[in-house]
Amino acid sequence: MDTPDFTEHIEFLRKETDKALNRLSISQNPESFYGPIKYVLNGKGKRLRPVLTHLVGRAFQADPEELMHAGIAVELLHNFTLVHDDIMDRDDTRHGQDSVHTKWNDPTAILAGDGLFVLAQLALGRIKSGTVRAIRCFNEAALTVCEGQAMDLEFAAGTDIRIMHYLEMIEKKTGSLLGCAGELGGIVANQDEKTCASLQSYGRQLGIAFQIQDDILEIFSDPKSMGKSLGSDVLSEKQTILSLIAKKDNAAEWEEKSAEAKKLNIQDRLLFLRKYYEKRGIRLKADLLAETAMNEAHKSLNVILSESHRVELEEFATMILNRKK
Amino acid sequence: MDTPDFTEHIEFLRKETDKALNRLSISQNPESFYGPIKYVLNGKGKRLRPVLTHLVGRAFQADPEELMHAGIAVELLHNFTLVHDDIMDRDDTRHGQDSVHTKWNDPTAILAGDGLFVLAQLALGRIKSGTVRAIRCFNEAALTVCEGQAMDLEFAAGTDIRIMHYLEMIEKKTGSLLGCAGELGGIVANQDEKTCASLQSYGRQLGIAFQIQDDILEIFSDPKSMGKSLGSDVLSEKQTILSLIAKKDNAAEWEEKSAEAKKLNIQDRLLFLRKYYEKRGIRLKADLLAETAMNEAHKSLNVILSESHRVELEEFATMILNRKK
Repeated sequence: MDTPDFTEHIEFLRKETDKALNRLSISQNPESFYGPIKYVLNGKGKRLRPVLTHLVGRAFQADPEELMHAGIAVELLHNFTLVHDDIMDRDDTRHGQDSVHTKWNDPTAILAGDGLFVLAQLALGRIKSGTVRAIRCFNEAALTVCEGQAMDLEFAAGTDIRIMHYLEMIEKKTGSLLGCAGELGGIVANQDEKTCASLQSYGRQLGIAFQIQDDILEIFSDPKSMGKSLGSDVLSEKQTILSLIAKKDNAAEWEEKSAEAKKLNIQDRLLFLRKYYEKRGIRLKADLLAETAMNEAHKSLNVILSESHRVELEEFATMILNRKK
Repeated sequence: MDTPDFTEHIEFLRKETDKALNRLSISQNPESFYGPIKYVLNGKGKRLRPVLTHLVGRAFQADPEELMHAGIAVELLHNFTLVHDDIMDRDDTRHGQDSVHTKWNDPTAILAGDGLFVLAQLALGRIKSGTVRAIRCFNEAALTVCEGQAMDLEFAAGTDIRIMHYLEMIEKKTGSLLGCAGELGGIVANQDEKTCASLQSYGRQLGIAFQIQDDILEIFSDPKSMGKSLGSDVLSEKQTILSLIAKKDNAAEWEEKSAEAKKLNIQDRLLFLRKYYEKRGIRLKADLLAETAMNEAHKSLNVILSESHRVELEEFATMILNRKK
């Protein structure tokens, strides 16, 4: 490790990623295409996915420059999905700023997303070692992310779903991309398929935990600490892990309580739901689901022989689970 | 050549492409994602781009299976752009059937387009020879297509443009993808960079001619022979090569005539514009522009030493220029 302190190390990797994103030679014209792309990349992303690629790859002494190409590709892919998802979900803000379709319009945002995706492929094509494996891993993950988004749209349209469907959806939508970020670290380091599969599993389980935590934070976090407007899931009456557990535990009571909640203004509704989720142990169950995924993630790390690197990836996982409460 | 007759040969390649598209193992679920993708691929595309890849590659004895991967990738990329462009341009029909956002909705169409793009990358990743070169060529073309679409959107929003801007736009939007189709034929056949650049130029110039011809056919063709609703450019008052030449030749008269045209119903407007474009030699000038691009395309074919294959590609170009009048 370059720095003794874990947080500093993560911050270092994040800044290096930002620098690399700035170094991408993105044209000026047409401005209506590249302007929005630059706007997205200048947004305040946490760069968790490239950081993950670096941490995994460094555990196997991969070339940092190669890891950066892979990390940048994953970050660009992530941003592509955000831009398109925001259009589909009609989310007006992202990372504390207007989303692309809000600042411009839908066609501009569709095209900016497409452009980010192409830039991701070009970044990935710069890898010198294991390129073909990397491209397959990357695009299989991209396809799975699309599947997850399709399921999410189906669920948002009111499909009656169970917890297992929801977990499948977040595994696809969030897990597969973090899984890809982990696996690419191994591919760039020329690790065998079995090792890469474990690294993918680490990222995927981390993604599941991350997404469950996201649902929890939507209701329970301090509004100032989240870029996304707090309670937007509640406002849009989106199904979350909390509402699904509530429904499974006591469908009749949940129907009654959620109808009651809908009559309240957003602030009171949040407080009402928080209280209900806590009182009925629903929050606890959601926390447990996140922890289970986290334990699975930790188990997958046994392919990393160096203890210091393993600990680092455990710390990274903990950082994600304990973020911004 | 497998068949003595050129038309039969093209038809053979087209059918083989359709078969290969049908063989793509596309999942069933989620249906909301893969259903629309299959709907697009079952549409009546002419498969001109994969046919081009095959014709070029066969001139250099490339492996037909490898060519098919490349051709399928280009066709999928093409369909991705059509699905997204149709949303942006609010085009309701495509190849004689409802476009995806019309049959379903915008989010479904955004996601279907994204999926087609990912499938394109996966198809390309199946090439065994020259994969890295192919991926760069392919994604650079994809980026250029996006640039072209952005310019097209700018122009549609009423930006005052000149013929040279328009030609740049169609070179990017249509030329670069046909250019890529040609170049991939060379890359798969392991040809050097200079040869591949010529093959790209052939496709690019062909694309320019194709697009100019498209503008002309929009006004002058028999409505039954075009899948796209005839006169949609006229209805949407889109700038075309014909309107730009008219404006350049006599801006004052064109302003007057186009104002006059707008007062007519669509049928009369088409007849009125046809007459004007013919009387003032505007159609002739557009034809000449298409022919110039076609001559450039022919010149680029000098890298193909086998006369029979060169003739075949010349015939292909002619077929495109003379289509469906």
